[in-house]
Amino acid sequence: MQIALVVYDRFTALDVVGPYEILSRLPDADLAFVAERPGPVRTDTGFLAVTADRALDEVPSPDLVVVSGGPGTMDQLENPALLDWLRAADATSTWTTSVCSGSLLLAAAGLLRGRRATCHWAALELLEKSGAEPTGERVVTDGKYVTAAGVSAGIDMALTLTGRIAGDEHARAVQLLTEYDPQPPYDAGAPHKAPAHLVAEIRAGSRFSLT
Amino acid sequence: MQIALVVYDRFTALDVVGPYEILSRLPDADLAFVAERPGPVRTDTGFLAVTADRALDEVPSPDLVVVSGGPGTMDQLENPALLDWLRAADATSTWTTSVCSGSLLLAAAGLLRGRRATCHWAALELLEKSGAEPTGERVVTDGKYVTAAGVSAGIDMALTLTGRIAGDEHARAVQLLTEYDPQPPYDAGAPHKAPAHLVAEIRAGSRFSLT
Repeated sequence: MQIALVVYDRFTALDVVGPYEILSRLPDADLAFVAERPGPVRTDTGFLAVTADRALDEVPSPDLVVVSGGPGTMDQLENPALLDWLRAADATSTWTTSVCSGSLLLAAAGLLRGRRATCHWAALELLEKSGAEPTGERVVTDGKYVTAAGVSAGIDMALTLTGRIAGDEHARAVQLLTEYDPQPPYDAGAPHKAPAHLVAEIRAGSRFSLT
Repeated sequence: MQIALVVYDRFTALDVVGPYEILSRLPDADLAFVAERPGPVRTDTGFLAVTADRALDEVPSPDLVVVSGGPGTMDQLENPALLDWLRAADATSTWTTSVCSGSLLLAAAGLLRGRRATCHWAALELLEKSGAEPTGERVVTDGKYVTAAGVSAGIDMALTLTGRIAGDEHARAVQLLTEYDPQPPYDAGAPHKAPAHLVAEIRAGSRFSLT
């Protein structure tokens, strides 16, 4: 099973490294980080570069596509090299997936029209404008399209996919291997759980740089 | 605040990318992935390389040290370049931390003698033999030493640290930004929750390659 993890300048690392960590434990999985051009690709914070081992063109027909999100998404929404690749890869993929704002790229490629989907909570309105039907779920499956909410939600998505692809027992084994027994020290990970002023500050970009 | 994220050949990506994602949202944080030599460092699966932007020698006195775990840990347990750096960095650090088997490196450097600590569940016996006092907690704080359990536990550790360093409100904001509201589709993320045969298979290395 060939898995392509799509990155671009100013992607968010955990969006795609979470799924990578889980999906790399699928039996006979062959994963590749892919970008328009191979080589180091820097994340949104500037503090990390991961290597795209292959160019998009070198991986034309993966079985599973995972599209990262991140602030850099907005620069890719009209990039024909990426959108054309997404459409072509989707034509033969078994699964087409995204994390966080990555679903905006799937939508820009015309793949989510009328489909149930999700993305980072702060970008749900943009997703709706792009023709998808946003839901409040953390992981949304609509046929072969699986989209995850923000950043850390890719881990839950990848475990869900692992169960679908390799069975519940293998998914449990991967969960155990990665000791994914989360115990967050706070309970503010979704807008309906967090103080309203924090939601407002993040939306406004006043607490964290979102660009 | 200077934060050094320590990687080496065959580290586990999520061990350190989880904390990176959270800690990079600390106010005025300056993060660097560091390795014995700068350049691409390949993870345990072989499918991903991250760039070590700096050599260990270039970051002699970070405020916060995060040591990754991974199968490659075992090759570093007698590496004087790494262990000497850990001891020197620890002499001036505010926080010395690890994820997964990374605590075995802190122990090998002599930093966990008699201290409460943890690591991946399958390596707790090794940690005890190294002179630390393992606990069953997911995140263990003993003075300035903070150790996390396996792989995904680094996210919980980093949020805990964020609260200690920047306050509960900022930690909640980072949790919301990263939409860390985990909803694992299975409940097998710890040995006492998973089927016993999966625990045995992972310990024996018969389901996943651990090297």
